Formats: sequence, C-alpha cells, structure tokens
Amino acid sequence: MGADHGPRHRRDGRPAAARKDSSAIAATRPAGPAAAEQPSSGPRRNEAARLAVLNATDDLLVERGFEGLTIEGIAARAGVAKQTIYRWWKSKVDILYDNLVLDAGEALAWPEPAGDAGYTVTELRGYLHRFAAFLAQAPAGRVLQALVGHAQLDARTAELLHDGFLRELRARDTERVRACLAQLDPRAAVADEEAAALLDGLLAPLYYRALLARGPADPAELDRQLDQALRARTA
Amino acid sequence: MGADHGPRHRRDGRPAAARKDSSAIAATRPAGPAAAEQPSSGPRRNEAARLAVLNATDDLLVERGFEGLTIEGIAARAGVAKQTIYRWWKSKVDILYDNLVLDAGEALAWPEPAGDAGYTVTELRGYLHRFAAFLAQAPAGRVLQALVGHAQLDARTAELLHDGFLRELRARDTERVRACLAQLDPRAAVADEEAAALLDGLLAPLYYRALLARGPADPAELDRQLDQALRARTA
Repeated sequence: MGADHGPRHRRDGRPAAARKDSSAIAATRPAGPAAAEQPSSGPRRNEAARLAVLNATDDLLVERGFEGLTIEGIAARAGVAKQTIYRWWKSKVDILYDNLVLDAGEALAWPEPAGDAGYTVTELRGYLHRFAAFLAQAPAGRVLQALVGHAQLDARTAELLHDGFLRELRARDTERVRACLAQLDPRAAVADEEAAALLDGLLAPLYYRALLARGPADPAELDRQLDQALRARTA
Repeated sequence: MGADHGPRHRRDGRPAAARKDSSAIAATRPAGPAAAEQPSSGPRRNEAARLAVLNATDDLLVERGFEGLTIEGIAARAGVAKQTIYRWWKSKVDILYDNLVLDAGEALAWPEPAGDAGYTVTELRGYLHRFAAFLAQAPAGRVLQALVGHAQLDARTAELLHDGFLRELRARDTERVRACLAQLDPRAAVADEEAAALLDGLLAPLYYRALLARGPADPAELDRQLDQALRARTA
C-alpha cells in the first residue's frame, strides 16, 4: 500500500479518532470490527490492518468490479492474512458496507452553514452537488452503487443498507431540508413528510443518473431541479 | 406448471406469434433462443419448453430471490433438462433478460391514443401509472429491478441491459413524449433532447421508489409530478 496508490487514499493520512466520529453517519453500524477487536497485537496495528483492508477493497472494486472482488484478492492487496479479514467481517459485502460508512461520513457531510441562520438553500444546493460528485467520481460512490445493486439481489444486503446507512442518511437529510424550508418561510410549519418528499424528489434524479443513465449529473440541471422544486412548493 | 401457478401466467394462454411481435421492444435482442433452434423435436415443443423455462424463472426469482435462482432449480421447476436450458441460454441473467423483453413488451406498452391526434398527455399519464405498477407488482418488474441491480455489479449485464432493453425503451418513449409535447403546443418545435430530459425526470422517481425507497409509488404523487414537469416547461 502507499505511494503507488496516490492521493486518493485520504484515510491514510488521518488520525483514526478524527475519522471515526467525523459524522453521525459513521456510527450507523453498532458493532464495527474495531469494537470487536482487542487482542494482543495492539489496537494501533489492528487499526492499520483494518484501514489497509478497507482501502484495498474500494481499490479492487474500482479495478475489477464486484464480481472480481474476492477476500483472497483483498487480503493479497492489503498485505494481511485472509483469517484476519474473516475475524472482522463475514463477507465482501460487509467490508464494502464499512467502507461506505467510513467514507460517506466525510464525503456526504453538508457544507457548514455560512450564516447564523443554520442550514439554508445554499447548503442544500452544495450538498446536492456534493452527492452527485460522490456518485459519479468517488470510490465510495462506486461502493454505494454496488451495494444498492446487490440489495436488489440479496435480502441481507438490502436490510443492512436500507435499515442502516440509507435510513440514517435520510433521517439526517430530512431534518436539514426541514430546517432549510423553515428558513425560507419562518411563519409556516414544515412537516417532516414534506421535507422528506422534497429530499426524495431531489435525490431521485441523482440516483437515476448513476444507476440507470450511467453518466455524471449536469450541475446546471441540478440547480434547475432544486429551483423548480422550491418554486413548485410555493406555487 | 399450470393450475397451481394461477392466472399470473398470461404467457401460457397466448399464441406464440402474437407474443413475439406484440411490441417493438420484444425484438430488442437479435438472436433469441427460438431463432437458434430448429431441431428434430419440432418448433412447437421447443416453444413450450422455452416458455416453461421463462415462467419458471420469474416464479423462482419472486420466491427465492436472485441468489437463490439456479439453472438446476429452473430446470426442475420447468420440467426440462439442464442441457436444454444451456442450449439456449448461457446463464440465469440471459434467461431473466429474455423474460424481461418478452413481458415488458406487453406490460410497458403505451395505452392506445384515445383520439386521432396521436399520443397526448393522457397516454403519457397512463404509461407512467403502468410503469409504476410494473415495477411495484409485476414479476417482470422484479426481473427488471434484479437486472438493474446486477448491472451495477457486472459489466456484461450492464451492456446487455443498457445497450439493449433500456436503450430501445428510451428511444421509443422519447419519441412518444416528443409527440405529446408537440401536441401541447403545435407551433413549437420539440427537440429530442428536451423530450428525453422530461422522460428522465418522470421515470427517475419511479426507479427511486423501487430501488431506493422500496415501496410502491403513490398514484396521486405521479400525477402531481407530471403536472409539475409540464408546468415547469411552459413557465
């Protein structure tokens, strides 16, 4: 690992503590491998091995695709024993899921509110652009696409993804969209349902692009869709 | 096969000729199994075996899921030899694909235009409702979801689905949406790009529901989305 993999591996240069609680989403899954593991080799070495496995996994997903991704291949690329991987994870899907939770916490964070008013349309717009770029370009975006794909084929993956990561993400985003809408019109109460419907309407084209139309979203089109959704709300 | 599977198997009661060219989409794939097969046992018996395999496949997909779907299981349910299946198809993905092409030709047909003016918003609306019901309820809708899922994991499936079925469907639907828009305002020329963008905007929430939110679309919401998309166009 290391130099030959270039700057994409932002994880390598970070202290573990900063990564783990950088977002509420990163805590989606109750019993992560780090929690299950306190043996003699020491937590720091375990953490290095764990990150090597996670990095190897999204590398190999991008290079070889889901079908070509094997525990053997991950172990070889990460320089760890297969047994080490099986001690922490049951399958490649579980590794991909932890990979997603770790990276998405960072990549899908909302921009910090610019003013004192909390989240506004400016931050919502920024988030949508970030989400589109995540799906189109980030290794973890490829991981999310693969897991959404696998969730159509396998009930356990569906449960893991939908009852875990996607549910947490939606709850957080619904609350922030609600805050944005309340900001736009402080006199009107905004129901969670309304905020969730607006969020769904904005995310649907992003997922459609990634999963069905298989191309990057057009940023100008994203802006147009957001403006239109907000206009339709007040019409 | 037969009585214990109920009326869902519309295919069983149809003459083969009517099924095969009931829609332009049914012709998506150049060399179907029927074309490759003219041996001594006679075309009628082959056709019956082929339909038994196709019916067994979506049955088993609904019952056991994609991972539980095997060529052995399909052969047993259809009452044919595994060799018969391998003579016509390379994998379960290929059987699912032929299943989709056959059933979607019927389920995703547009309503016949009510008047002499050709396709109008009325037929577009009907098509969207039909598409939503297809994804939510039809066995072939489950097949489409599974293939979209598998296409995220496997390049060959992606090519088969996106360069075949989905491309043909989109070309047909874009042309019809273009006709609808031209109907709304006969003085304005409607570019294919504009029609395709409108179509994408209407289909995205349907796929999002099926693949991400995993529930049926609300028909009233569908109507609202169509009205809003048309309003935004003229705004």
